[in-house]
Amino acid sequence: MARGTAQAAVALGGGHGLFATLSALRRLHDDLTIDDLTAVVTVADNGGSSGRLRGEFGVLPPGDLRMALAALCGDDEWGRTWADVLQHRFAGEGEMQGHVVGNLLIVSLWELMGDHVRALDWVGRLLGAHGRVLPMATTPMDISARVRGADPARPDDITVVRGQVEVATTDGQIESVALVPEDPEACEEAMAAIRAAEWVVLGPGSWFSSVIPHLMVPGLRRALAETEGRLIVVLNLEAQAGETTGFGPADHLAVLYEHAPDLTVHAVLVDSSAVGGDRERLEKVVADRGARLVVEDIAVPGEPRHDPDLLAAAFGRIVEGS
Amino acid sequence: MARGTAQAAVALGGGHGLFATLSALRRLHDDLTIDDLTAVVTVADNGGSSGRLRGEFGVLPPGDLRMALAALCGDDEWGRTWADVLQHRFAGEGEMQGHVVGNLLIVSLWELMGDHVRALDWVGRLLGAHGRVLPMATTPMDISARVRGADPARPDDITVVRGQVEVATTDGQIESVALVPEDPEACEEAMAAIRAAEWVVLGPGSWFSSVIPHLMVPGLRRALAETEGRLIVVLNLEAQAGETTGFGPADHLAVLYEHAPDLTVHAVLVDSSAVGGDRERLEKVVADRGARLVVEDIAVPGEPRHDPDLLAAAFGRIVEGS
Repeated sequence: MARGTAQAAVALGGGHGLFATLSALRRLHDDLTIDDLTAVVTVADNGGSSGRLRGEFGVLPPGDLRMALAALCGDDEWGRTWADVLQHRFAGEGEMQGHVVGNLLIVSLWELMGDHVRALDWVGRLLGAHGRVLPMATTPMDISARVRGADPARPDDITVVRGQVEVATTDGQIESVALVPEDPEACEEAMAAIRAAEWVVLGPGSWFSSVIPHLMVPGLRRALAETEGRLIVVLNLEAQAGETTGFGPADHLAVLYEHAPDLTVHAVLVDSSAVGGDRERLEKVVADRGARLVVEDIAVPGEPRHDPDLLAAAFGRIVEGS
Repeated sequence: MARGTAQAAVALGGGHGLFATLSALRRLHDDLTIDDLTAVVTVADNGGSSGRLRGEFGVLPPGDLRMALAALCGDDEWGRTWADVLQHRFAGEGEMQGHVVGNLLIVSLWELMGDHVRALDWVGRLLGAHGRVLPMATTPMDISARVRGADPARPDDITVVRGQVEVATTDGQIESVALVPEDPEACEEAMAAIRAAEWVVLGPGSWFSSVIPHLMVPGLRRALAETEGRLIVVLNLEAQAGETTGFGPADHLAVLYEHAPDLTVHAVLVDSSAVGGDRERLEKVVADRGARLVVEDIAVPGEPRHDPDLLAAAFGRIVEGS
C-alpha cells in the first residue's frame, strides 16, 4: 500500500473528535510519515453559531470545518495567532453572542467565491495549514434517528428525532441514524482523497452524529469501498450521555457495522483503560470482520480525551507495522 | 524637510475620503517617493455595523479602520482577496445583515490581544498592507455639533446634536463641532507618526464628522503643532448635503481654521472644477494664513470623487516642489 515512505491519510469525523485525530496525524505529517493529510468533515450541525448561520444563509454549517482547520494550523506565531482568531467566540449578550469569527470568515469566503473547496483552501493558506479540510458533502443536511423511548413515559415506542442537536441530546436509545436528504452529493475532492489515500481514519467523536454520518453518504461509502487505503476506526473513550448512553467499545463498533455492513476495517484502535470488561466481546466483533484490534494507552490519564502524542504514536505503529 | 528621497507621510481622515487619499498615497509609496505611510483614522462612528459593534462591545468603531486597511492592501491576489473578504458585507434579513466581516475580525483581534495597535498591525500583515493604520484615539467618542435651525420651524435656534450619524444628517446648519469626551486620549503611535512625518494630509471627507475631529483631539493637535512635517489640506469636491449644505471651498477651509486657529497649513489642494466662482475668496483665506493654494484636476471627470492617479500626481508635484 505504502508508496515508499510517502503516505497519504484522510481523517473522517467532526467536532472535538476530529480535532484530536488531526492533532495526532499532523505530528506524523511533520515527521514525514504522512506526506498528504486531508480532513473530511460532517456538515449536519444545526446548533450554535453554525446552526444560526445555516438558518440565516442556507450555507453548510462552518463550525466543524473551522475547528479542523484550526487543528492543522501552522506551528508558528502566524499560524497559531490566526487559529486563535478563527476560534474566537464572541461573549456578551447582544446579537453577536456565541458567534465564532472563523465561521463568519468561512461564510464570507463562500459568498464571495461561490466555491466551498476553494474558500476552505484559502483559509488553509491563511493558517499555513498542514493539510487540507473538505466538507463531506456540498449541501447541508440533517441527521435523523430512530429512537426508542424518547418519551420516558413510553419506553418501548420508537420515534424519529431530526437534527444533530436533537439526536445528540435525546433521552431515548438511538437504534439507527439516517441522513435527510438520504443521498447528499459527496464532495468530489473528498472522494478523490479517500481513493488516493493509504490510510483512512474514522472516529473518534459523537458516534451517531459525527462519525457514522460519513458512512451514510453514498459517494463517500463508494469511495471507501473502492480505495486501497486501510481503514482505522478509533473508538471513543467512554459512552456519550444522550447519544450512546450505556455503550461499551463493542457496542460502538457493532452499530457502526450495522450502518455499513460492507465496510472493510483494517484496524480498530481502542484505549486500554476504555476496554474494561468488554474486551472479550470486542475481540469477537473485531475478529468476525477480519479486522485487527489494537489496544494502546491513547488517553490523557484520568481524562476522557485522547492525548495527541500518544494517539500519534499509536497511529505511527499501525502505519509502520502495516 | 526631506531626508534625501525617503519621506514619511501621515494621512488623517475617515471613510471614503481617507480611502481616496490612501489610494493616492500608496502610489507614491510604490514608487518610493514616500517610504513610510501611516493612516490615522476617526473613531467616532456610531452608525451601521461599526455602531452596532460599538454598542454591543464598547469597542472603537472598526469600520473606518477596516476601510483604510483595505485601501492599503497588497497589490497581488493574496492582498486583494483578503481585502475583498474584509470588505464583505452580509446581506439577507437576519441578525448578521449589514455586518462587515472585517469589522468582526478586527473586534476579535482586539478582544484577543487587548491592544488596538498590535491587532491592527496583524490585519495589516494579513493584507500585506503598504502602510500602517492607527486609530486617532484609543477610546470611542462621540461628535456633538451646535446646529442652527435643526428644527425647520425655528430656523434661528441653536441646538446641540450628538452622534456622527446625527451630525452628518442634520437638517440645520452646523456652526461648530466638539468631541465627547472633550479630551480623548490620542493614540501614542499616531502622535509619534505625525511628529516624524515630512508630510501630513488632512481631508478630503465628511468635513465635520471625519476631518475636523482630528483637530479636536488635544494630543493630535499638539503633534500637528510640533511636527516639522508640512500639512496639506485636501478640500472636498462639493458640499455634502446635511453636513455642509451650501458650502464652497472657502467655507470648508474657513470652518477648519475656526476649529484650529493655531494650525499651520503648507498647501491647500483643490480640484479646478470645484473652485468655481469661489476662487478669489479661497485665495484670500489661503493667503491670509500663509498657505499655498494648489488648483489641479484631481476629480474623476463628471463624478464627485477624487481620481487616485490624478491625486497621486498632484501630491507628487507638491512633495517634489517643496
